[in-house]
Amino acid sequence: MDNQERLLAGIVNRVNAGLGKHDFEAGIYIRPLVSNRSFFQTPAYYGLTPDHPVNFTVIHSSLAGSYFAGKCAVSNAAIYRTDIRGDELKRKGQAVSPGDIKLILKEDETVRVMDSCLINTLVHNNSHDLSCPEDFLIQNVAAMPYANIHGSRVMDCFLGPFSTVDLTTVRNCLIGAWAYVQAGELADRVIEPGEILIQVEGAFEFHYRFPAQALANYVNQEPGREPGGFLMDLVKAREEEIQGLFKPGRTGPAGSHHLPDGSLSPFALVKGETELGPNVFVAQRAYLENARLGPGANAQENCWIINSRLAGLDVTAHGGKIVNADLGERVFVGFNAFLYGQPENRLVIGQGGIVMPQTIIDAQEPLDIPANSLVWGFIRNQDDLAGQSLSLEALAEVKGEILVGDMRFQGSGAAFVEAFRHRIEHILEENGAFFDGTQKRGHAQKSRDMAFLVLPPCPEGESAGLFPDLQLRSPV
Amino acid sequence: MDNQERLLAGIVNRVNAGLGKHDFEAGIYIRPLVSNRSFFQTPAYYGLTPDHPVNFTVIHSSLAGSYFAGKCAVSNAAIYRTDIRGDELKRKGQAVSPGDIKLILKEDETVRVMDSCLINTLVHNNSHDLSCPEDFLIQNVAAMPYANIHGSRVMDCFLGPFSTVDLTTVRNCLIGAWAYVQAGELADRVIEPGEILIQVEGAFEFHYRFPAQALANYVNQEPGREPGGFLMDLVKAREEEIQGLFKPGRTGPAGSHHLPDGSLSPFALVKGETELGPNVFVAQRAYLENARLGPGANAQENCWIINSRLAGLDVTAHGGKIVNADLGERVFVGFNAFLYGQPENRLVIGQGGIVMPQTIIDAQEPLDIPANSLVWGFIRNQDDLAGQSLSLEALAEVKGEILVGDMRFQGSGAAFVEAFRHRIEHILEENGAFFDGTQKRGHAQKSRDMAFLVLPPCPEGESAGLFPDLQLRSPV
Repeated sequence: MDNQERLLAGIVNRVNAGLGKHDFEAGIYIRPLVSNRSFFQTPAYYGLTPDHPVNFTVIHSSLAGSYFAGKCAVSNAAIYRTDIRGDELKRKGQAVSPGDIKLILKEDETVRVMDSCLINTLVHNNSHDLSCPEDFLIQNVAAMPYANIHGSRVMDCFLGPFSTVDLTTVRNCLIGAWAYVQAGELADRVIEPGEILIQVEGAFEFHYRFPAQALANYVNQEPGREPGGFLMDLVKAREEEIQGLFKPGRTGPAGSHHLPDGSLSPFALVKGETELGPNVFVAQRAYLENARLGPGANAQENCWIINSRLAGLDVTAHGGKIVNADLGERVFVGFNAFLYGQPENRLVIGQGGIVMPQTIIDAQEPLDIPANSLVWGFIRNQDDLAGQSLSLEALAEVKGEILVGDMRFQGSGAAFVEAFRHRIEHILEENGAFFDGTQKRGHAQKSRDMAFLVLPPCPEGESAGLFPDLQLRSPV
Repeated sequence: MDNQERLLAGIVNRVNAGLGKHDFEAGIYIRPLVSNRSFFQTPAYYGLTPDHPVNFTVIHSSLAGSYFAGKCAVSNAAIYRTDIRGDELKRKGQAVSPGDIKLILKEDETVRVMDSCLINTLVHNNSHDLSCPEDFLIQNVAAMPYANIHGSRVMDCFLGPFSTVDLTTVRNCLIGAWAYVQAGELADRVIEPGEILIQVEGAFEFHYRFPAQALANYVNQEPGREPGGFLMDLVKAREEEIQGLFKPGRTGPAGSHHLPDGSLSPFALVKGETELGPNVFVAQRAYLENARLGPGANAQENCWIINSRLAGLDVTAHGGKIVNADLGERVFVGFNAFLYGQPENRLVIGQGGIVMPQTIIDAQEPLDIPANSLVWGFIRNQDDLAGQSLSLEALAEVKGEILVGDMRFQGSGAAFVEAFRHRIEHILEENGAFFDGTQKRGHAQKSRDMAFLVLPPCPEGESAGLFPDLQLRSPV
């Protein structure tokens, strides 16, 4: 058994032990994904900018093809083709307010990944668990491809492919494929594949579950096999091309390309006739082909924007995919949403629209979504759309419960709309969409002059299969 | 005063203090060389192979465009465009014998650079100071461009441009431009520009001094100015081209190119019709143009091999330059030797020849050096050659003293020839020239699969002007 296998076996043991009550075996899902030994030869990258602490610790881990930024500490972890983007972490001296209490951060927040296996995973934002605000901990976790860990401390969990845990402390949970959870805290639960749950205590709850068979056609996961389905196959077809950007000597760790006040990661793939406006932010692993991004639009990790136009101030959250579509201004496309128009069946989304996380729109006919609509679920045609959308105006009127198709909403519609609007505004701010030449800098501006540490795997020999142990710090 | 300037000022103070008795001001020589701020943006590289410890420590230093391998520790140092090649360091458990005593190394030897400024410098081999065999120390040293520190602990010294200290512990010395010292120990001395001194206690002494004015035409150094002269100008004309290889995104840190059982550094420049035979080793910063290197030949750091053929098993030591020349088998070209033929005045060196370190041959007519000759000094034509060469056979007969032109040899000629032959054989072995497909691996084979850590400078902000502090280790 080589180092690589020993490392994985140790992690699998920790994850299984942590998930004890669920009687779960994580190894059977991990192993098929790491059978191709060649990809372990890819280096890891750490992005340096003046805006984030230079602070990276690696102990006894394997990091092939992964990307890190901000204050990160990794130990006994297998992190493959994964982004640990610590560029929104809280800073020393900052105040946070869990309830009525005011806490001051004692040190810069760290993304701390221990005893975990993350594959094609995205980790971003900062821990919304304010009981220990300095510690964005991911421990005893197995995350399958294209899971998003967003602002969430996660312990003793299995995250299925394309699942998202958002602003939630998650402990001892099984999160199914294509599930989305935003619930503050979640413990000892099984979230089924395709379950979409947003709970804000005392305010509202949004719940939807994908039809199981329809979802399985797009994304599925069987024990002992790699995740499959139509979307997974599409993603895999492009994966090697993206991953090629992380091979040394190919693009090399060049600095970000300069756009007018924006930035395009050198680890993003750009093809065809692509135009990027001012204040645009394109993250690593984004795939742009014949894409037009208007002012202040962004494309986060694992996004596709293909044969599509975004008018401006549009948010494409982590993993969002937009194909053959035209988006008006300030359209929000949530985590992993799959908007799949066709050349003959284009998809139009009017301004101010909100596409819920993990929505699938696979257009079998031209679709035109009115401005300021909320859209969710699984949509192929006008009929589907009618049963899985709501105007934000109508939603804002809701008090109590409303059922629309399989979607159940309870609580204050106004609070829900307000929370979403507020969050979108915050995301645009963080991404530098409102930069005026001097003020309101965000990722679009801060990532412009990024330089990269390139960390290769250990050479053949005793340590092969691991990466060198590393401590990187700003000099004192 | 920024970090860069503060660092340099601190180093200059240490060097000046160390050189106290000489009443020397190092800053006046360093400053003109570091006036171009743009080059500080280049990353540093650390080469990883299974054959050498992965062990690199950086504390409060600036390393732009430099290359490291093996166990290196750098603190409060400004190391620019410099190679610290720790691939021949001694290893833990190895025995060394200063005189009759046998010592066992307690740990792997470290190249330790402290409070020093090294510019375009080459550090290689291992410390021949056996009083502390684990510690290849370079402390309070200012080294000017193309100085070689070879197997030499150096403390409290100034090394002029193109000078070489070889297998010598050097303390509190001023080493002039183009000087070469191999003397076991050297303390409290001034070595004049162009002085060539080889002293093996109780065996022999070789001494030569270049005519001062002739040397100044090739290499000179005035206070407050960059080093100048014909050779320096030629080197500078090629320097940016070589340095371009160290820019990220240009070649990137690709692995070494594969030759038949040999290796060509990705940081070497290769042009024109160049052919490389089996077991060839070409180090970083070598410049090859229309070059033919026969089996087992090598080209070390800062070498040129231009419009030239090396028959095989030839050694081109650090900084050796071969232009418009044909070398027979097993020709040794010493440190920084400048062999400058012309298309119409080619230079031929017969097999088994030894070109002494720092020799200048600037051919004004075709020159043909017989096989098994020793050559030194400053040679432009047949007359010069006659007065500055000797057959190794004749030299081996010498006992006592012999004067040839400005060269004085004392002691056992046989011991000198034997020592040189032995050393050349050792160098060929270390470079893998005798690799038989399985046995006798050397640098040519060990460097084939090198991967590189790329360490960028600190981004703009508080730490700008320095590199991040780093600890890199094999995982345990």
